[in-house]
Amino acid sequence: MSGKLVIIGTGPGNPDQTTPQARDAIAAGEQFFGYGPYLDRLSLRPDQRRMPSDNREEISRARAALDAASKGASVCVVSGGDPGVFAMAAAICEAIETGPETWRRLELVVLPGVTAMLAVAARAGAPLGHDFCAISLSDNLKPWELIERRLRAVSEAGLVIALYNPISGARPWQLATAFKILRESLPVTTPVIFGRAVGRPDEDFVVVPLGEADQQRADMATCVIIGSAETRIIDRPGMDPLVYSPRGAGL
Amino acid sequence: MSGKLVIIGTGPGNPDQTTPQARDAIAAGEQFFGYGPYLDRLSLRPDQRRMPSDNREEISRARAALDAASKGASVCVVSGGDPGVFAMAAAICEAIETGPETWRRLELVVLPGVTAMLAVAARAGAPLGHDFCAISLSDNLKPWELIERRLRAVSEAGLVIALYNPISGARPWQLATAFKILRESLPVTTPVIFGRAVGRPDEDFVVVPLGEADQQRADMATCVIIGSAETRIIDRPGMDPLVYSPRGAGL
Repeated sequence: MSGKLVIIGTGPGNPDQTTPQARDAIAAGEQFFGYGPYLDRLSLRPDQRRMPSDNREEISRARAALDAASKGASVCVVSGGDPGVFAMAAAICEAIETGPETWRRLELVVLPGVTAMLAVAARAGAPLGHDFCAISLSDNLKPWELIERRLRAVSEAGLVIALYNPISGARPWQLATAFKILRESLPVTTPVIFGRAVGRPDEDFVVVPLGEADQQRADMATCVIIGSAETRIIDRPGMDPLVYSPRGAGL
Repeated sequence: MSGKLVIIGTGPGNPDQTTPQARDAIAAGEQFFGYGPYLDRLSLRPDQRRMPSDNREEISRARAALDAASKGASVCVVSGGDPGVFAMAAAICEAIETGPETWRRLELVVLPGVTAMLAVAARAGAPLGHDFCAISLSDNLKPWELIERRLRAVSEAGLVIALYNPISGARPWQLATAFKILRESLPVTTPVIFGRAVGRPDEDFVVVPLGEADQQRADMATCVIIGSAETRIIDRPGMDPLVYSPRGAGL
């Protein structure tokens, strides 16, 4: 029995942003592991088996998927966005490293996707137009002190910042604290973009200055992009402004 | 006359990684502006007009595209990867900000794509599995001192680093200097990934320890990913090793 495990990124949510490569892999899969709402977005056939799990059960989901593949199944593990950005690819690797030897012999394929910050940036203009970083604001797996240190380092170095996992019921104050830290080194006029479900019917998208950025605008699925001191806004008559970061920068 | 300008990311190069949204926009376009090799990858019809230009002419290309759109054409500006990551979206915004008022009234759409670091990361495993950044090593538009400062800040803060534009004929020493700076704060065993044309027939992909990273392995189109101190390698019998960054981290 030799199974196969494919880790798939379906993109930001609009089906037109899922790559043909990911669609073909979904069509060929037998068993599907992932967060329930992500699996709901796939149009699976009756012969394809759904194995939904909660968002916080990444390692047990990874082990279950590897176990199914090692028994000979063609298994898909599904992430929204890109599976390598704060998603299932790292969890699968962790499970392989600490799991039975047979899991290292499985055929493993990771298919990239359009991650949330790219979709939010495209909606806004070009806020990631120069050097940038992506930081998860979840302190479930790393100490909050480390997140604070990273926020200070990257904002002082002039990088645009994309925040993933900005807030949740169990992490209610972290985003407000992050904004407070960023106000120490960035102008209050720095554009902050809140983007959620961009390109989907329930899209939520707003640009506010850092001085007025309120964590109430975000939920678990929001990607928050904070500009650098160079990030600019172009007003346009009758249209949303464009937010962009010039390609160049000074010292 | 009201034209339209669509800025399109075609993904890493494998046509199966171009989103249906980008394909549809290409099918609907009349005039195509972009770096010649990117335009060559599109299967344009005889009635669709190619306007290729050199890689270093981004602002003049942006202005020509905006001018054509303002005259009523349906214009596509084409980038490889994602247009918002060290590509044409920021150049178009710069041109709009400094250009005639009419350019602000144009319908402008940015369509995201799979950027190089996501494709290279997927090929390797999950090296971007925790906090990471993307830095262009080109000092054409920013001083080298700023790049050095950013490399120090992000490596000391524990971020994984994706380097874009690592080397070119006119910038022959920058990548070797970057490796030298990173060796000051990262272990010599830190995995470094060189990925070029991933998923295409001419793919070039290799993983080496930072202590042996040689800039000769890269060219202009290579994306170089340097792990953090936590990034790990899983050996697999008869297959490439997996490179991944665990989701958690300590202080």
